[in-house]
Amino acid sequence: MDRAEKIDSIMKRRGFLWRSSEIYGGISGFYDYGHIGTLIKRKFENLWRHFFLGLNPMFFEISPSTIMPEEVFKASGHLEHFTDPIVRCKKCDFVERADQILENILHEKFEGLSKEELNEIIKKHKIRCPKCGGELEEVSEMNLMFPIEIGPFKKVRGYLRPETAQGAYVNFTKEFNALRKRLPIGLAVIGKAFRNEISPRGGVYRLREFTQAELQIFFDPDEINDHEDWESVKDLNMIVLLAGSEDAKEVSCEEMVEDIRLPKFYVYYMASVYKFYTEVLGYPKDSVRFRELSEDEKSFYNKLHWDLEVKLETLGGFKELCGVHYRYDHDLSSHEKMSGESQKVFLNEKKFIPHVIEISFGIDRNIYALIDFFYDERDGKSVLKLPFKVSPFDCAVFPLVKRDGLDERAIEIYKNLSGHFDCYYDDSGSIGRRYARQDEIGTPICITVDYDTLKDNTVTLRDRDTANQIRVKIGDLSATISKIIQRGKF
Amino acid sequence: MDRAEKIDSIMKRRGFLWRSSEIYGGISGFYDYGHIGTLIKRKFENLWRHFFLGLNPMFFEISPSTIMPEEVFKASGHLEHFTDPIVRCKKCDFVERADQILENILHEKFEGLSKEELNEIIKKHKIRCPKCGGELEEVSEMNLMFPIEIGPFKKVRGYLRPETAQGAYVNFTKEFNALRKRLPIGLAVIGKAFRNEISPRGGVYRLREFTQAELQIFFDPDEINDHEDWESVKDLNMIVLLAGSEDAKEVSCEEMVEDIRLPKFYVYYMASVYKFYTEVLGYPKDSVRFRELSEDEKSFYNKLHWDLEVKLETLGGFKELCGVHYRYDHDLSSHEKMSGESQKVFLNEKKFIPHVIEISFGIDRNIYALIDFFYDERDGKSVLKLPFKVSPFDCAVFPLVKRDGLDERAIEIYKNLSGHFDCYYDDSGSIGRRYARQDEIGTPICITVDYDTLKDNTVTLRDRDTANQIRVKIGDLSATISKIIQRGKF
Repeated sequence: MDRAEKIDSIMKRRGFLWRSSEIYGGISGFYDYGHIGTLIKRKFENLWRHFFLGLNPMFFEISPSTIMPEEVFKASGHLEHFTDPIVRCKKCDFVERADQILENILHEKFEGLSKEELNEIIKKHKIRCPKCGGELEEVSEMNLMFPIEIGPFKKVRGYLRPETAQGAYVNFTKEFNALRKRLPIGLAVIGKAFRNEISPRGGVYRLREFTQAELQIFFDPDEINDHEDWESVKDLNMIVLLAGSEDAKEVSCEEMVEDIRLPKFYVYYMASVYKFYTEVLGYPKDSVRFRELSEDEKSFYNKLHWDLEVKLETLGGFKELCGVHYRYDHDLSSHEKMSGESQKVFLNEKKFIPHVIEISFGIDRNIYALIDFFYDERDGKSVLKLPFKVSPFDCAVFPLVKRDGLDERAIEIYKNLSGHFDCYYDDSGSIGRRYARQDEIGTPICITVDYDTLKDNTVTLRDRDTANQIRVKIGDLSATISKIIQRGKF
Repeated sequence: MDRAEKIDSIMKRRGFLWRSSEIYGGISGFYDYGHIGTLIKRKFENLWRHFFLGLNPMFFEISPSTIMPEEVFKASGHLEHFTDPIVRCKKCDFVERADQILENILHEKFEGLSKEELNEIIKKHKIRCPKCGGELEEVSEMNLMFPIEIGPFKKVRGYLRPETAQGAYVNFTKEFNALRKRLPIGLAVIGKAFRNEISPRGGVYRLREFTQAELQIFFDPDEINDHEDWESVKDLNMIVLLAGSEDAKEVSCEEMVEDIRLPKFYVYYMASVYKFYTEVLGYPKDSVRFRELSEDEKSFYNKLHWDLEVKLETLGGFKELCGVHYRYDHDLSSHEKMSGESQKVFLNEKKFIPHVIEISFGIDRNIYALIDFFYDERDGKSVLKLPFKVSPFDCAVFPLVKRDGLDERAIEIYKNLSGHFDCYYDDSGSIGRRYARQDEIGTPICITVDYDTLKDNTVTLRDRDTANQIRVKIGDLSATISKIIQRGKF
């Protein structure tokens, strides 16, 4: 088995994630998380909340509905612009994104071209169906939103949201008032979004149903060239890849402002994202970079768009895990026009529509990236070296053998620890197999109760990453585990 | 304003919850949570996880997708049976549930009748459109699931799940294996479910998009008459209302088994739910009861069905907040038949399909119930006496005035506490108004920094429920707040 197959096998066998409703064959683009996957997902979401909402006491999470009325997406532009160009084979009915077909055959990038341009290239190169060689229909545009018909008979049209962000925009004025009319405020949404991708591939990397964590930061555009906490990031170095450039380079935040001419308020949030990956999650600096998107690649609503990318072996290189978007006043202005409800605020002695910087995470691809990146082996056995704070369990408790009172003692310790930690109990199989089982799912600490425990009230603590062991007094166990999890190192 | 209006005003004004996409008029049956509502919702969900997953080390949460293939609902019976009888006016197009129209006019219950029976009653009583007096069409059946068309052109039919439960069933064999082939195991899902209700009313009480927390407990049916932890509940008294009875009565769990002939394994989980409401959430015992559903009221898949109800003033009496369902082997057997994949386990020297007891919570109605039930007033001002563990903030910090260093001191205290507690800082307006603002959203503890603080390093702690104040040393602040929140009483 190669690395990707080994990871896949663990994910299916141990309760991480797999194709949804697999007993019915599943449908591409839908995944289910098992119990281990869910533990990781919840921890990642909580870590995200703690970090990003902790950036400012005026940043809060809200929970808008996932089905929203059609007007929302008329205003946002998704109804008109959120489309992919698709092409169908007249003979075998095979359907694919037109740019994808061209890319596979001509080995160039065609993303962002209009359907007219794509049709022309198809004609020029006499492109035919990659499956059966049949003739292709004209390229057409397919909207990627899932429509929902609400109510009986005369139905009202809604859509499953294609991004959580719109839920923050339609609630902006309500929350601005509830938060007592100050700026900046931040409205985060962690929840499902849905896109009817033409032919989703790459496992959890491109899904039709996925979880996003997005933070919309509303601010006074006159204050974009400053941030009250700027001093804390100005000397931070980040690796960046400019649009059109081949080579990434290391620059400080100060240089991002001075040389690359980005506004401080925007760079501050790039730096926050960078810190989240390198300091909170602990990705090594040389595997993390920011990439500037070209005009062709940017979404229709973004004025600035940099993606945070992490180098992922099984996916063949740097992959986008988070975007930082300067959406300008696009969404609030559009909602003001469409709804007739003013989205203006009166603040700093003027009346204006706030601008928005968005931090947008795809949770599923981030979970996958963690597993992929931190998967390792020792003596031919899998060790998932996850950051301790997102490991499904903090620790596991084993009795060396299931007799002589060792098991009772181990259960007692397990019960005590369970109140404070995510703790797993295992008494079956050899101690070596039990260690291996925990290594495979990334449990940082294994605690073993042995015959010495009965004599001197100590247990062994084993480090997942080195297999080294130390002996600790039972009375100090809780404090020791806390310390290890906190510092993220055994 | 009456009580319901006052509550509604607070919910809208302070960031609890309101109709979704209200700037576009919204659509009935969809709600958005603001920042305060979301804080409560997250805490409620975590409390639920902690309590119900804590019942057994083999109970875990999983996260299946919300869109599922059609086969799932063919197997579960939802495609055929999950319908409401509806009737339309030939003249004005008004549409309503047929049983609802009859109930409003004839003041009897007609839930569960077939469309033939309903048609007969409409004819017999010459029922006409309640809006315009026009003639009514024949009663028809409307399926309450939202269909989803997946992919381009030749689409695959899926549905938004109408209950989270099916996600646990289709993953049963995978999780049974990952959890190393033992029973009982519990698979919980906390997430969205969707029902295309004909005409949703009652605010968040009946929604088209809602959050469920459901736990499916898979067990060996030969062991239904016992539970390993039975001793801990057998003397617990619960108030119950038997199907067909007018009077609720208090009975012990032992009597539920001996006299009402319910299986111990089932009563154990009824007792757990009862404890969650009375002990964890702290509803007074006389406002909580279990009601047995009659054959007509039970869902098609339930063999036993008792609802936990709480007495809610603004909704006019006892309302269902949670159901405990014995779903037998209905779902796993149906999925085995439909998918051809065995759902049998080999355990205890036999091969069998596990049976399931389901604990099913509607989260939104539980949040609403908490707000409704614990809303109170003091001296004409609103005090939301929420259980401390679901209060949006644990504490708020105020400087008495914004000068003389009191504010710096207060900010310092706020920052220190923020690492450990959900904490809010407020320095604007009179101290009385600041207390009132926190009372309105249910913050249990207000901490005020005053001139004495500068002299003796103490602050005042004020109790939301009595407005009493005590003085506490700053060094003891964290421990004191912890203790108060833990015990749920100032």
